[in-house]
Amino acid sequence: MTTPPFFIGVDVGGTNIKLGLVDDEGRTLAYSKIPTDEPSGPSSAMRRVAAELRAMLAEVGMTMSDVASIGLATPGTMDIDKGLMLEAHNLPHWFNFPIRHTLEEETGAPVVLSNDANAAAFGEYWLGSGREFKSMVLLTLGTGVGGGIIVNDSLVEGDHSFGSELGHIIIDYNDDARAIPTGQRGHLEAYASGTAIVKRTQEALEAGEKSSLTVRMKSGEKLTPLMVAEEAERGDELSLLIVMETAKYVGIGAVSLMHTIDPGAVVLGGAVNFGGADAPLGTMFIERVREEVRRRAFPVPAKKTAIRFASLGADAGYLGACGLARQSYLRDHQAPVTS
Amino acid sequence: MTTPPFFIGVDVGGTNIKLGLVDDEGRTLAYSKIPTDEPSGPSSAMRRVAAELRAMLAEVGMTMSDVASIGLATPGTMDIDKGLMLEAHNLPHWFNFPIRHTLEEETGAPVVLSNDANAAAFGEYWLGSGREFKSMVLLTLGTGVGGGIIVNDSLVEGDHSFGSELGHIIIDYNDDARAIPTGQRGHLEAYASGTAIVKRTQEALEAGEKSSLTVRMKSGEKLTPLMVAEEAERGDELSLLIVMETAKYVGIGAVSLMHTIDPGAVVLGGAVNFGGADAPLGTMFIERVREEVRRRAFPVPAKKTAIRFASLGADAGYLGACGLARQSYLRDHQAPVTS
Repeated sequence: MTTPPFFIGVDVGGTNIKLGLVDDEGRTLAYSKIPTDEPSGPSSAMRRVAAELRAMLAEVGMTMSDVASIGLATPGTMDIDKGLMLEAHNLPHWFNFPIRHTLEEETGAPVVLSNDANAAAFGEYWLGSGREFKSMVLLTLGTGVGGGIIVNDSLVEGDHSFGSELGHIIIDYNDDARAIPTGQRGHLEAYASGTAIVKRTQEALEAGEKSSLTVRMKSGEKLTPLMVAEEAERGDELSLLIVMETAKYVGIGAVSLMHTIDPGAVVLGGAVNFGGADAPLGTMFIERVREEVRRRAFPVPAKKTAIRFASLGADAGYLGACGLARQSYLRDHQAPVTS
Repeated sequence: MTTPPFFIGVDVGGTNIKLGLVDDEGRTLAYSKIPTDEPSGPSSAMRRVAAELRAMLAEVGMTMSDVASIGLATPGTMDIDKGLMLEAHNLPHWFNFPIRHTLEEETGAPVVLSNDANAAAFGEYWLGSGREFKSMVLLTLGTGVGGGIIVNDSLVEGDHSFGSELGHIIIDYNDDARAIPTGQRGHLEAYASGTAIVKRTQEALEAGEKSSLTVRMKSGEKLTPLMVAEEAERGDELSLLIVMETAKYVGIGAVSLMHTIDPGAVVLGGAVNFGGADAPLGTMFIERVREEVRRRAFPVPAKKTAIRFASLGADAGYLGACGLARQSYLRDHQAPVTS
């Protein structure tokens, strides 16, 4: 059984573009994935997206006219109001491009543009780990640190499309704080990202710390956050210390967000999740995040704010894009409750 | 000329309660102030507020039935959903009290409860320094550091009424960071509040720094942020350094908020404003805040975010309370625009 209206989500990544069709309850009715083929550019990609969407809809006996609205999530910086992608480091040819208008032209459906991290946050809020809360913060740990914020059903996109750049809250103002590639110091991302995990581990190894990581690196393996997680699971002390320090930094960032937004939940997403809720290391990691929060936050939010892993994985982006399309559609088409 | 509907704002402070009547455009039609008389308790105070409101309305030829809604701003922690004041350090007898319901009983009008710092933020957003923006952050510098956040017309009050505790974002996670009275370290308030200004100055004087402050203190004056501001204006180097360091800390906090909320404006309010926009020292202070923001924020928000002083002074609280009452009334009584 499906509940109309129907919505499409398109999540553009550096390698693939994910496409999904959902109903009003967020149930996925069809799903597909096509290569981004970055160098061919965004015009060509949006044409291929539209063709794939028509094929996907045909498989479930629908056409584009059955779709109420399309959500489009893209990486990098953008101008939401104008529907422009401005710059994305993993899509260098997709520069200053009117992507919303282009997909509207190709599909004939209204398109709602959002940042991919914000869309993922909205996905978790609508259907995932944040679904029972009025507001939620998603912190994503990957190569960098990103995230998204939802307050009372509204995504915080910012007045200049720079909202929820959560890797760039400052946790150490001192001149000797760790730097991000721009040279700016003390941003959360310089401590808690996958890149930072590798850097901190390298520093410890160069300082002479003993670790089973050394053996694997000598055999030619490249140091990665996953390798640190694996060795931590196997009992390597340095690796475990690095993981727990990462949790501490995430907890510190969470406290600043709790004292700003006071969300119902802080949800941890992204590829760097140490196995997540089902893994012993993931459980130790998130428990250490909670410990840091209890230490630093006011007692009421420390006690009441849920801190948990994301639950939608890589589907959060297209599902959130669907959710944002749905929200925009409902705002335009539904009379709100009045007393 | 006045534009109905009419709204009342009540701003409860430790010493006085401010009362104002405004029209739909935020024009103040009547204003009054009564002593809080804290020890007599909140029931008695709300009875006196209602009596004063009736007298104030009578003076402009109105009665309570002309009032659409009342906004009530109170300090400390609260449970907004339940309309409770929980705890306020400057109102020790006003503990765990159903203040919203009490004022509704006394006046017969609907009452909207909010935190006083949040109300002040909403006042600046509606009628003051934030009025041309879609979203705004207010940072208030006083004995402590507080503030409020408005995103797309909505006050961020938080899921547990702990939103916008902006003195408690963390700017230094290190173990040797400055502490607030709870012992928790690295919170913005430990650096940028009036209390912190006095403490940092005392430390410098104890470390042997020369300053004209010493002369005044020897003559029996108590060290205050105002005294530091006055001596900075007169050219005292230490005092000026302390003021500029305060600006640096405020700028650091502003960057974390800009990368979280990405507001149209960061507005600086509170008593510690070094004379504000019209004073040479205030101008130096806010220019130093902007410099720190340019150094640490992403280029787009650094360039586009307005950083300015608040403009409503001590009226921001009651005006914001009126604005919140108005917003609640409009949401309940006006059909939103639909396409």
